[in-house]
Amino acid sequence: MGILTLLTDFGYHDHYVAALKARLLHLGPSVPVMDITHGIEPYNIAHAVHVLRSVFRDFPLGTTHLIAVSDYGASPAGAVATPAWHAAKYEGHYFVAADNGLLALLCDGVPEKLVRLHAEAQAAASGASQQRLPPTLNPTRDVLAPAAVRLAQGKALASLGPPTAELYLLTNRQLRLQDNRVTGHVVHVDHYGNLITNISRAAVDVVSRGRPATVHFGREQVRELRPHVAAVPPGEIVCTFNPQGNLCVAINQGNGSELLGLYFDSQVDVRFVE
Amino acid sequence: MGILTLLTDFGYHDHYVAALKARLLHLGPSVPVMDITHGIEPYNIAHAVHVLRSVFRDFPLGTTHLIAVSDYGASPAGAVATPAWHAAKYEGHYFVAADNGLLALLCDGVPEKLVRLHAEAQAAASGASQQRLPPTLNPTRDVLAPAAVRLAQGKALASLGPPTAELYLLTNRQLRLQDNRVTGHVVHVDHYGNLITNISRAAVDVVSRGRPATVHFGREQVRELRPHVAAVPPGEIVCTFNPQGNLCVAINQGNGSELLGLYFDSQVDVRFVE
Amino acid sequence: MGILTLLTDFGYHDHYVAALKARLLHLGPSVPVMDITHGIEPYNIAHAVHVLRSVFRDFPLGTTHLIAVSDYGASPAGAVATPAWHAAKYEGHYFVAADNGLLALLCDGVPEKLVRLHAEAQAAASGASQQRLPPTLNPTRDVLAPAAVRLAQGKALASLGPPTAELYLLTNRQLRLQDNRVTGHVVHVDHYGNLITNISRAAVDVVSRGRPATVHFGREQVRELRPHVAAVPPGEIVCTFNPQGNLCVAINQGNGSELLGLYFDSQVDVRFVE
Repeated sequence: MGILTLLTDFGYHDHYVAALKARLLHLGPSVPVMDITHGIEPYNIAHAVHVLRSVFRDFPLGTTHLIAVSDYGASPAGAVATPAWHAAKYEGHYFVAADNGLLALLCDGVPEKLVRLHAEAQAAASGASQQRLPPTLNPTRDVLAPAAVRLAQGKALASLGPPTAELYLLTNRQLRLQDNRVTGHVVHVDHYGNLITNISRAAVDVVSRGRPATVHFGREQVRELRPHVAAVPPGEIVCTFNPQGNLCVAINQGNGSELLGLYFDSQVDVRFVE
Repeated sequence: MGILTLLTDFGYHDHYVAALKARLLHLGPSVPVMDITHGIEPYNIAHAVHVLRSVFRDFPLGTTHLIAVSDYGASPAGAVATPAWHAAKYEGHYFVAADNGLLALLCDGVPEKLVRLHAEAQAAASGASQQRLPPTLNPTRDVLAPAAVRLAQGKALASLGPPTAELYLLTNRQLRLQDNRVTGHVVHVDHYGNLITNISRAAVDVVSRGRPATVHFGREQVRELRPHVAAVPPGEIVCTFNPQGNLCVAINQGNGSELLGLYFDSQVDVRFVE
Repeated sequence: MGILTLLTDFGYHDHYVAALKARLLHLGPSVPVMDITHGIEPYNIAHAVHVLRSVFRDFPLGTTHLIAVSDYGASPAGAVATPAWHAAKYEGHYFVAADNGLLALLCDGVPEKLVRLHAEAQAAASGASQQRLPPTLNPTRDVLAPAAVRLAQGKALASLGPPTAELYLLTNRQLRLQDNRVTGHVVHVDHYGNLITNISRAAVDVVSRGRPATVHFGREQVRELRPHVAAVPPGEIVCTFNPQGNLCVAINQGNGSELLGLYFDSQVDVRFVE
């Protein structure tokens, strides 16, 4: 019996999380359920992907991750969602999510194994626009939860629906590597106000060729990379790699985002002397 | 052994939830405890009722729900609370709460079965004003938790105290049904900013007699009811029934409450052509 | 098998709590884990101590409490942290924390039994400045979690490291007792806005010698101590002792902190007629 984790934007003030847990209890009373978080910013796929990517490997191989964010699927600007739901296998873990771009971001493309869920609702929706979905459909309850429980109970991925390579594609922000510079962006601001970038230790190592780095952002520059956030006195700016190997800009015991005026998507450069 | 759920306004920043759980562990180590939410707005009975009503039926019959909001009972404006605590049975579920109006709102009156708790503290308080309650009394810990654990362990409701029909009564906001109109109010704003009204699908069906509906609120009107929130493009207003059959006004992927200037108790009309 | 509780400032919006729980699951799959809270204000040792002190005794003797706040240890103003981690026994409970002053505040000095953790990381750091810690070190994951799991599994405190009396010392705010007055401070503002002071029932009893008390704060004075917060009508100021015996200033069903302009560290006096 595998573990089932939950990652949602349901928040902590409504009945939504309890309704999901009651459903899981009904569908698979002996499946162990663990919360990742229910505090994803509403509809924020980037936030969900960052959290999931940072932690899913910490769970045992074979864990099933149920992601409930924008659970009708992607709604491109100006268009309505075309409901579709998937189960995927990636790096030995299972994922169940609506077709909202999250799996493409997580796997940097189409995952190794991907099936389109033909759950009860899926059947009802076969060939239909979302206008013909059963009006009482609740995708997380009726499509994602049953699929996740089956995976956690050891059912094969292939039993959940037909294989597919059709996936709503979103693309991760790419790093720009130059001779003397790595250019990236803030991909997450955590609740301390620490700024996590998409600049990996590997990219810095490739470009540095042993040269010392300076980190540039806003009007600031920082001349040294530290082993951790507490390696400078409180109140000072610090640049460090987090345990996932991402460059972070922070203020020790302070809110870096507020104090430095940096936010999601702000640019950060690592430069080397020519 | 039944499940015991928790619904409180204790929040997530203090020791209150942990103190309750430690108490439950002490009283009934094998009783399975599930959180509904601890994020009810402080003292907000309407919020608590909305959440409880939306989810309690999702748990197995025989589940016990411990509600810890205003746990000394109702304090009418200008008066002090007269402490009293109840256990009730309603639609096959058990509820334990202070006499603060919540049970009356949940059951739309006095519940099928209602007993007045004569727990330790109740004894101490017999015939007394709250000034003579033991000063160390903590109603959730000393009255509600023991009663809830006994119910979850299968003890009879009648063993917890004498039957009563005396209950602090609050009345749900009523719908107004006219020939060509259903008038209701926002009863909850969820954490997405979606506005949930007390207008039921049944009421709309009764008045519509097959005529198309328009929904009116603030200065807006919406001409179509959709099957779900994602059935319009992002940023557009949508009216739909939620899984509980309540009419909701929302903005797909937006905060409807902020963007429309609608809040708890705002009026919403459903109108039909004459 | 003892219980393991968690008290952190990791918040509810990131992957940090899930990463810790996944680690605990890996290290001790059968250890029962209970959350105290993850909502400690970032880096706020005083907040963490208040919550821990208010609830740890509610858990069974022998419970292990893992505290993850400022997990590299204290960073005195202008200086970098000198990483050190401890396990302690105090009043029959076990505590695992970085050397950040929390244990000294909790125990009002050095705890009965205190060992310096020589976990994997500790070894790597032996005799070293924090600059030589392994750069991938995550103290909560690599030092605190393994120690906490071993304690919860019944291993002896002494097996975790050498005894020590070296501890980063912070001192609790002291009460001032005079002939006709007890002077204290707000040590916590809870999520209701209730103001909890360090004025104990015992201190008031000693100084009162049977005389009636008035409580003074800001420009207000309150002439009566009540048995609980709900013993005055809604909206009125109330002074009462909480279940831990600390004097609280509150507004029944209101936010006392906001309405009275009192905050952490505000002064509160209890005065007696001469």
